[in-house]
Amino acid sequence: MTSRLANARRLYPEDRVALRELGLRDGLQLTKTFPSTPAKIEWIEKAHGAGVRHFEVGSFLPVRTFPQFADIRTLIRTVDGLDGAFSSALTLNEHAIADSLETPVDEIVVALSATEEHCMSNIRRSRRSAIGLLSHAVGERKGSDRPLINASISVSFGCSVGGEVAPEEVLRLAEACAEAGAEVIGIADTVGFAGPRQVRELCELVLPRVHPLPVIIHLHDTRGTGIANAYAALQAGVRVLDGTLGGLGGCPFAPGATGNVAFEDLVYLCERSGFATGIDLEKLLELRPILDRELPGETLYGALARAGPPATIRWQSGST
Amino acid sequence: MTSRLANARRLYPEDRVALRELGLRDGLQLTKTFPSTPAKIEWIEKAHGAGVRHFEVGSFLPVRTFPQFADIRTLIRTVDGLDGAFSSALTLNEHAIADSLETPVDEIVVALSATEEHCMSNIRRSRRSAIGLLSHAVGERKGSDRPLINASISVSFGCSVGGEVAPEEVLRLAEACAEAGAEVIGIADTVGFAGPRQVRELCELVLPRVHPLPVIIHLHDTRGTGIANAYAALQAGVRVLDGTLGGLGGCPFAPGATGNVAFEDLVYLCERSGFATGIDLEKLLELRPILDRELPGETLYGALARAGPPATIRWQSGST
Repeated sequence: MTSRLANARRLYPEDRVALRELGLRDGLQLTKTFPSTPAKIEWIEKAHGAGVRHFEVGSFLPVRTFPQFADIRTLIRTVDGLDGAFSSALTLNEHAIADSLETPVDEIVVALSATEEHCMSNIRRSRRSAIGLLSHAVGERKGSDRPLINASISVSFGCSVGGEVAPEEVLRLAEACAEAGAEVIGIADTVGFAGPRQVRELCELVLPRVHPLPVIIHLHDTRGTGIANAYAALQAGVRVLDGTLGGLGGCPFAPGATGNVAFEDLVYLCERSGFATGIDLEKLLELRPILDRELPGETLYGALARAGPPATIRWQSGST
Repeated sequence: MTSRLANARRLYPEDRVALRELGLRDGLQLTKTFPSTPAKIEWIEKAHGAGVRHFEVGSFLPVRTFPQFADIRTLIRTVDGLDGAFSSALTLNEHAIADSLETPVDEIVVALSATEEHCMSNIRRSRRSAIGLLSHAVGERKGSDRPLINASISVSFGCSVGGEVAPEEVLRLAEACAEAGAEVIGIADTVGFAGPRQVRELCELVLPRVHPLPVIIHLHDTRGTGIANAYAALQAGVRVLDGTLGGLGGCPFAPGATGNVAFEDLVYLCERSGFATGIDLEKLLELRPILDRELPGETLYGALARAGPPATIRWQSGST
């Protein structure tokens, strides 16, 4: 556990909040257009300049079917060249894991689902098989502790296919993932079913049982509770949160609905709640024109981009 | 206190959540167009049919300057005729109070601000004078305990004019309002500066000190924290929450920003968090076409209106 933990803490120090920007991965899964590679590099570099340190830059998938992720290796190298920045990529099968190991990617994400139905329809694997993929990834690292292995449990708060999800079932899967070698556990509200009470209760259940592994909360704002859920996760002790710039990333099960929780609003929530993010919100909002330009026709979300932070009070957290 | 409390508890029972729909008052303060009187009546009746029981229907103001509130007496009578429904109206001066007492309105709202600067610019009165207006209203009731007197403290979480607001200052004002005769205390984030931590801390400070008077939280979603703030208020013990259908009611200090927290999303938050509202969310969403039709050009907000409630899980609170 010592080496596993050291690597997890390198990316996610225990004593501070880490915000993962997933726009270039989860944000582009459903968009009709996608940014050019130079625009993606500009996106990463400007976000890094604003203080963002965690970037999920794509998924290792067949280029013909998923052209939006064709430049994933370039983006991993881009992040690798930036001071203190970490890259992450989705790896849904053995091929993807093999491909990822040829890059300097800092973290790979293996997805599974809280329900068998969603797991089969989302990644065409059983949950058992997805957990096997985690063990496979550990083996493929051949003794190295890099990249970090992240197990992300989709539909942890209820499933659009399988319905209710018992918190105990998510706990069982989280423990199985940790046992199989996952070094970070993600709890995802993939379809935006969660309310803050559910988030707090599930996080309080899982955190002590996978301790000292970091837990990530991944939220969609489909039903307006995204920021409330993020606050509930912070209250429960979660210190790693996912989001996308402009709230990119719609839900295929809720047409017209908002996507991931807006990264800009997450920054504001954390700062306003006493959790320093290291991110300059004003600088971050300067990225908006890149999104507008590169994703024409996409609805962008996020209240901070509309209203800006409060002008007459101190809203930033004191520590850094 | 006994009679005062009985009246307050008639409108706001201690053992359940009450949601106040302010669309016809706060929602129409800045709109360029406003619904016809028949459309407003349809709005109230349909919302009542969905289970809404608390309606703020306007402000007693000069008709020439504020034509959107010209039909306030008609709307008070409309609410008066509906089973279990309560009407509320803003009364910002002695004239307004006198006018309100000639109607069957259930509750009148006297506004003041946490800062002297905002109070003078918003209602052209000092805070001391606004508190005097509360005593005046009590006197004018001539021994009756109706209408209920509600003191609403604007910019309680920071002021667009005066800057920082100390929680102790809001507490001082809340206690002064209770002493002057207010039977309900409103804490308002008029300019949308609050985060959930501030809401929880301020509510936990004020609630025990004005107990057993009910406390209302009035939130704007200007910076995306509206629902998180509502959740924090519920956690702190607040059981009366304001909102507007479609999140109507922009902020003059933040052009293009969202307005009040969306009533539909408040209902979902409460139900998903174990607080029964008595409101049928599906029926409530059927009001949306009235808003679309009657307020052309107004941007409507709210995630539930876009995505609908979760289809495959039980999200309603069990009790009623």
